[in-house]
Amino acid sequence: MRSRRVVAVVAALGAVVAAGVTLGQANNWYPSRWGAADQRGAANRIDAAKVLEAKSLITRGTVFQLGHSYESTMPLFGTRHFSLRIPQTYGPMGTNRTMYHDEIVSAEIGQVGTQFDGLGHIGVGDLFYNGNDRNDFSRPDGLTKLGIENVGALVTRGVLIDVAAFKGVARLEGGYEITRADLTGALERQRTEVRAGDVVLVHTGWGALWGVDNAAFGANAPGVGLDGAQYLVDREVVLVGADTWSMEVVPNPDPDLQFPVHQLLIPRNGIYIFENLLTEELARDRVYEFAFFFAPLKLKGASGSPGNPLAIR
Amino acid sequence: MRSRRVVAVVAALGAVVAAGVTLGQANNWYPSRWGAADQRGAANRIDAAKVLEAKSLITRGTVFQLGHSYESTMPLFGTRHFSLRIPQTYGPMGTNRTMYHDEIVSAEIGQVGTQFDGLGHIGVGDLFYNGNDRNDFSRPDGLTKLGIENVGALVTRGVLIDVAAFKGVARLEGGYEITRADLTGALERQRTEVRAGDVVLVHTGWGALWGVDNAAFGANAPGVGLDGAQYLVDREVVLVGADTWSMEVVPNPDPDLQFPVHQLLIPRNGIYIFENLLTEELARDRVYEFAFFFAPLKLKGASGSPGNPLAIR
Amino acid sequence: MRSRRVVAVVAALGAVVAAGVTLGQANNWYPSRWGAADQRGAANRIDAAKVLEAKSLITRGTVFQLGHSYESTMPLFGTRHFSLRIPQTYGPMGTNRTMYHDEIVSAEIGQVGTQFDGLGHIGVGDLFYNGNDRNDFSRPDGLTKLGIENVGALVTRGVLIDVAAFKGVARLEGGYEITRADLTGALERQRTEVRAGDVVLVHTGWGALWGVDNAAFGANAPGVGLDGAQYLVDREVVLVGADTWSMEVVPNPDPDLQFPVHQLLIPRNGIYIFENLLTEELARDRVYEFAFFFAPLKLKGASGSPGNPLAIR
Amino acid sequence: MRSRRVVAVVAALGAVVAAGVTLGQANNWYPSRWGAADQRGAANRIDAAKVLEAKSLITRGTVFQLGHSYESTMPLFGTRHFSLRIPQTYGPMGTNRTMYHDEIVSAEIGQVGTQFDGLGHIGVGDLFYNGNDRNDFSRPDGLTKLGIENVGALVTRGVLIDVAAFKGVARLEGGYEITRADLTGALERQRTEVRAGDVVLVHTGWGALWGVDNAAFGANAPGVGLDGAQYLVDREVVLVGADTWSMEVVPNPDPDLQFPVHQLLIPRNGIYIFENLLTEELARDRVYEFAFFFAPLKLKGASGSPGNPLAIR
Repeated sequence: MRSRRVVAVVAALGAVVAAGVTLGQANNWYPSRWGAADQRGAANRIDAAKVLEAKSLITRGTVFQLGHSYESTMPLFGTRHFSLRIPQTYGPMGTNRTMYHDEIVSAEIGQVGTQFDGLGHIGVGDLFYNGNDRNDFSRPDGLTKLGIENVGALVTRGVLIDVAAFKGVARLEGGYEITRADLTGALERQRTEVRAGDVVLVHTGWGALWGVDNAAFGANAPGVGLDGAQYLVDREVVLVGADTWSMEVVPNPDPDLQFPVHQLLIPRNGIYIFENLLTEELARDRVYEFAFFFAPLKLKGASGSPGNPLAIR
Repeated sequence: MRSRRVVAVVAALGAVVAAGVTLGQANNWYPSRWGAADQRGAANRIDAAKVLEAKSLITRGTVFQLGHSYESTMPLFGTRHFSLRIPQTYGPMGTNRTMYHDEIVSAEIGQVGTQFDGLGHIGVGDLFYNGNDRNDFSRPDGLTKLGIENVGALVTRGVLIDVAAFKGVARLEGGYEITRADLTGALERQRTEVRAGDVVLVHTGWGALWGVDNAAFGANAPGVGLDGAQYLVDREVVLVGADTWSMEVVPNPDPDLQFPVHQLLIPRNGIYIFENLLTEELARDRVYEFAFFFAPLKLKGASGSPGNPLAIR
Repeated sequence: MRSRRVVAVVAALGAVVAAGVTLGQANNWYPSRWGAADQRGAANRIDAAKVLEAKSLITRGTVFQLGHSYESTMPLFGTRHFSLRIPQTYGPMGTNRTMYHDEIVSAEIGQVGTQFDGLGHIGVGDLFYNGNDRNDFSRPDGLTKLGIENVGALVTRGVLIDVAAFKGVARLEGGYEITRADLTGALERQRTEVRAGDVVLVHTGWGALWGVDNAAFGANAPGVGLDGAQYLVDREVVLVGADTWSMEVVPNPDPDLQFPVHQLLIPRNGIYIFENLLTEELARDRVYEFAFFFAPLKLKGASGSPGNPLAIR
Repeated sequence: MRSRRVVAVVAALGAVVAAGVTLGQANNWYPSRWGAADQRGAANRIDAAKVLEAKSLITRGTVFQLGHSYESTMPLFGTRHFSLRIPQTYGPMGTNRTMYHDEIVSAEIGQVGTQFDGLGHIGVGDLFYNGNDRNDFSRPDGLTKLGIENVGALVTRGVLIDVAAFKGVARLEGGYEITRADLTGALERQRTEVRAGDVVLVHTGWGALWGVDNAAFGANAPGVGLDGAQYLVDREVVLVGADTWSMEVVPNPDPDLQFPVHQLLIPRNGIYIFENLLTEELARDRVYEFAFFFAPLKLKGASGSPGNPLAIR
């Protein structure tokens, strides 16, 4: 009688191999290359040299905000919610009559709207990054390992890959799988290269549906497929982001697979994902290289973080 | 019979004048210098030149995270709360057995922990920045003016003023009022100058109580007083931050005044406040000048934002 | 120059008179008949005799639950939300390996799903029950007057008025105004009378749309109109409930009026409203008289309460 | 290699046997006596005859509310929270100027304050009532079995056992274990008997600490021990309540056991628990028999419910 844990691992590995991806480390994706105790994954790829490389890309002083507004009318996955309310104004206090507002927010705050997926977000069965079993670290009031507070600042070179432009469309179709060839073709067209320690953002044009046709936005999505993602893994990036809710193609061309690119990047390779980014202005201005700035909110024990990352040129 | 609005304004002005601060624009603090329709206040002081000035301060590639962790055990003001829970793990999905975590957060999210105060946070009676009456813009599901989503990115030169070091202590006493003389003295000691468009962070040492003695941390605080704040207003800064929950001195030396420095900075001058910052490492490493990076979460209609701002050297 | 308060009262009184309702106390709807300090309104009509009257209606021992399930998929008004999540299971603790679940709920909990409207819910402009001005009692962390905790137990005779059956339909049309004649006609058909201190529930059949066609359910509703409500006021009831989200007709036949029946009942007459009740089984079994049991959750300072009231026969 | 599930069961059974309780069904506590598919447990003991028995106890028309107020300052277990905020007043709408308040509540709503523990609350390891494995029914947005919505109305005879009076004290000591002898002695003193299908409330006097010394209230508690609980199991009650946060004695005299009485009652015997009840008035008025009325809020998939149950005499 085999334990549940063993069954889960075998099943998951089998599935990904069946999808045709060559995973050199298929049988030993953990411990991670950064050691068995590591909780930062590909964030370890960023050092002072990458920060200075980012700095060198700032030439005009133009700042792009990459985060959407958070509001109850934004597209939401499944039954997640976002509620913001302004309580009654407090005060007045003192002879100077100070009054103040605050706000009550209830939400799956790390996994709604513009969202950064941490290493505690996605598992291969019960196993998460570095082989951590969720039964060992997932607690009611926070993950005791892999919490988003471990990530730290991501200040590095950023690259936008405009796949929509490469394919000659304003918006890729829902369900369109971005392949390795699409990524390399788009990079060649842009004359951009991807380097180790970079953040890569993929522009699909899908974000134009945000707040315009939320049902269509969430029904499916164009996105990076398994071989495209493997290409980025091989380039040793830190993070892959996109202007869709899933970053990866949904549905996957293999109907048996659910979010396999999330698994390839996050638990297997420690690479982060950033979803629902505003990449439109970067694409419009053909800003394919930039300094990227983001640090997750240190929500202790959280799986993800909301954000408003910056691209500066 | 005078309307409530008129009474409020007169009372507030009177109080601040009584506190001894010379307010050249006492009778006409609105419309703002950026026009009657402006919703960004001192963020308007940041232009491409300030971004490039910030860039030029990055020489080593060292990144400092200035945000605390958010957790239920952190110091909280009044009856505010912060709750984070990890729901049951979702899945497995597909033959690849994807599982995922997210998190439920309920909190006064823009006004707990490390927090950025926007222009919709503080009023002089009913009147907020640019003379906006709260009865006109404060709605149950968000402020319809002055919401935090209007602020945009703050990328500029940052200055740390280590008042604790200037006074020769590890930690200023609770209730200690930081004066104009303290600020200028500390700047002189550091050989740092404050320029228009800068972000100014004040180090008091108070942050050492965070999570160690929360009751003491919140009972009072050392902080900037009215004349010190006026000095920073005159320097035309963008934001004043500190390692305390209030940034300003609490209680105010004038017992009739409640949070008058908040009023001086936010509604009257459009200058932002950042509270509960982690300034310890900057002080320890004597990093008095740095590139500052922050963009509020675009919580539509919110009064403030949580954050993990970056100081880079 | 007249104060805002005076203007609000005059405007509101004018509106209701214009709607054609004879309000004998139009100019002096406060103080209430239970005194200027009263916070319980028509709950004062229930005494031990009413409890014993209720008791006498229990003859079979049949219990009807009148509350719907609360779930995120139920019809919700405006941008209100209901979120329930089960956090990770806690434990095991001890050698006996105790594990436990709890649940995180975020919601406008007194005003979603089956909901009981208290005296702090509805105002005529700024004025609420007993002439209380919201500026005096509405605070960020609860109403300091008229909170739901003041209501107490409502144990009394209950009457179901099956207006749908009287009109010979399974479901009244959206926007159908239930008149005084409808109420008296239905009561005559049922051979039921309404007595002082009773709880009255109106069956419209609209509840059949609940969870079946939420958009239709919430788009409008059949319900009690102003003259029908005045009839119930004259009968000196305690509470009026229905199987709709509004109890009253929406839209009101007078397009200038918004929820005037709420105003007539709650602030002007201290009579409670119960919405989204499950009246179907009572109607099917022709249970027109019953013992009614409900006590609001004592959510201190709340405007309303969720509930699962009981009708016993 | 044994599965985790088997290990859990063996360990749990061993622990309780070690505590010296004779559990006739130790090896086969599931399926329940109400069948393997049952989700209502001891609520099945209530039939029309019990409702009529309850009715017969109503002689004076006196109603006792047994629920505390819910407020952020009430005693809370662990890191649970209760937050209520009143958003900005909505409106005015229409010429009749309707304004309204609602409230935002975030809380572990079924497990804070006066709380009713359902069958999905407590497990013996992974196994809950009727042997349901939590891995099979605990989902992020609700328990798919044993949710509180299955309980239904509890209208039956209620009995108060005033153990404090029996012991001649106003308040039992924290950690005092109420034994079978205490229960039978107190019942004899009161001349009350416990019958099948009854609700039993235990008065300890501990509730006097509520809101007065919350730290003391929550540090430990007097309460029913294992043999006292077994007595109530044998009497075939429906629910055991008390004026403490735990109902059972904390800490248990056996330091290896954590909440074993919860396990004995809820998963093993399908008997509900009601905590933090207001029993003071019943005790003061020597109301030892009464009609009991409660129906959980139908929070779909929840482990418990808040409440304001009624005792009527």
